[in-house]
Amino acid sequence: MEQAAAWLSGRTVATPVVRSPALDRLSGARLWLKAENLQETGSYKYRGALRAVDRVAREGRHRGVVAQSTGNHGIAVAAAARTYGLAATVVLPADAAANKVARVESYGAQVVRRGTTVEERLEEVQRLHREHGYAVVDAYDHPDVVVGQGTAALELIREVERRGAGLDALVLPVGGGGGIAGACLAATGRDLAIVGVEPVGCDSLGRSLDAGHRVTVPPAPTLADGLRPSTVGELPFEIASRSGTTVVRVDDPEIVRAMVLAALHTALVLEPSAAAGLAGALRIAASGGYRDIGVVLTGGNVEPAVLAQALAGAATVAEEGVR
Amino acid sequence: MEQAAAWLSGRTVATPVVRSPALDRLSGARLWLKAENLQETGSYKYRGALRAVDRVAREGRHRGVVAQSTGNHGIAVAAAARTYGLAATVVLPADAAANKVARVESYGAQVVRRGTTVEERLEEVQRLHREHGYAVVDAYDHPDVVVGQGTAALELIREVERRGAGLDALVLPVGGGGGIAGACLAATGRDLAIVGVEPVGCDSLGRSLDAGHRVTVPPAPTLADGLRPSTVGELPFEIASRSGTTVVRVDDPEIVRAMVLAALHTALVLEPSAAAGLAGALRIAASGGYRDIGVVLTGGNVEPAVLAQALAGAATVAEEGVR
Repeated sequence: MEQAAAWLSGRTVATPVVRSPALDRLSGARLWLKAENLQETGSYKYRGALRAVDRVAREGRHRGVVAQSTGNHGIAVAAAARTYGLAATVVLPADAAANKVARVESYGAQVVRRGTTVEERLEEVQRLHREHGYAVVDAYDHPDVVVGQGTAALELIREVERRGAGLDALVLPVGGGGGIAGACLAATGRDLAIVGVEPVGCDSLGRSLDAGHRVTVPPAPTLADGLRPSTVGELPFEIASRSGTTVVRVDDPEIVRAMVLAALHTALVLEPSAAAGLAGALRIAASGGYRDIGVVLTGGNVEPAVLAQALAGAATVAEEGVR
Repeated sequence: MEQAAAWLSGRTVATPVVRSPALDRLSGARLWLKAENLQETGSYKYRGALRAVDRVAREGRHRGVVAQSTGNHGIAVAAAARTYGLAATVVLPADAAANKVARVESYGAQVVRRGTTVEERLEEVQRLHREHGYAVVDAYDHPDVVVGQGTAALELIREVERRGAGLDALVLPVGGGGGIAGACLAATGRDLAIVGVEPVGCDSLGRSLDAGHRVTVPPAPTLADGLRPSTVGELPFEIASRSGTTVVRVDDPEIVRAMVLAALHTALVLEPSAAAGLAGALRIAASGGYRDIGVVLTGGNVEPAVLAQALAGAATVAEEGVR
């Protein structure tokens, strides 16, 4: 991971770690927020995608890449592929957020919309791989992706230490599990709780950890469009389960509240999936036991209407934490 | 200014310089956005306030400070005063944004709401100064404030150079003129256009530069609550007029559009006054002649309802620049 972090440091945005006195007051903990919504392509997924696509380019055996995604991984792969002059095809769900489709296309990638489950998308990816010989860049079951995403957590851990503190907990939202697995690797050797956050009803990691093996969870409706994969990846599950990862569940009202709090108190736009992470951090802060809590704010690619609606109902949230 | 920048560097947030491929495409220029909305207290005003309050504390002749403000300077003075254990009283307009009033109070400062013009507020400041012996920390007619605000521009200029480019223009919104004057000082010795942005009908700097002396402009209604001072400060005017500063005017729809574009393409929440700066940059980009344009995004303390309303009308803006 050291090597990946060094390699990425000149190729990605050095995103800031943001503090907020108001959020600290409100949570009763000290929150350290790694603003990966300011990362290239608007999410931390760019880290893993760039690592993976760089490998494809160096191998020189493929003229293009193909990936399935609920959005951000696809945007990241499209951007990375363009950097290397590779063709990119991104398989998105039929109900993908419109802004994410537009963003993938803005990097010159081809978008294929297929089904609503990850299984349907993976099938299409395999078909495109066979038909065109494109290299598959998996969204989370991929060592480069896990390690790449983990560098965001590593940068956060180190920045907190540079400022003379130390994290008691590190919180990330969980979709396919690449980010949380990367965080486990980043935290190796440190006494640090790793906490995954899943929307209620989309808790494939939580249920898998309970069962001791991977469990498929038909995704329930959630605002957090990036956290809908019905099964966590095999590699992420292996890593997360060996690292004592725990999971908290959050509902849509908590996600909306976190989006509003972030906008008001940190001037950052979070997409619902990233806000879920903050909501989870507020939950574990309320439960006590953690003084310094790190959160990777994973992305900012939100539909304007979703953010507008969240803010429109913000009158009561707005007063929280300010006084 | 070197000394101020060095002194502030450990005491303020090292705010990032944000790039956006989508905004570059949309503007036809390269925009370099200094995200001072992520600064302590949510605006770049903290820089000047901390310098000024530090001086008061070192002199040790006053047990408190008093300042008038449309909001952000007041929040910044309140926060700085608390750092030094000084009492703070902030005079805000009667129609001050509610979130700004709450933020001033959150730092333990006393808020006095008085009138709607800067003259009324300045009168009250003088009264409080006489009655309580508080030191006055002027919002812009103050060398520490001008120089302090200028360090944001200096950091931006230097970061752009560190990345191997150079600014052709540096854009800031203008209220009382402290920030633009600081930018003039920061740009000394560089071939760099300094462009102030004022809301239509609140163009006290623009009219003053035309007239060759300070002109009072009864403020017209504008979304940009921070840009309403009816007269620019004497010191800022002297500096700006000697530096060849020019002014562009923007209207409310342009400000709203810039707020939406910033949220969508940079994941940053801007308050209307800061969005005015971005709107001005888009204007001068459209006029051509500038390749690299720096903008100080001065603050992010927006009322949620204002941002919600901007985003709710964002459907058409959302498609811009993405493709």
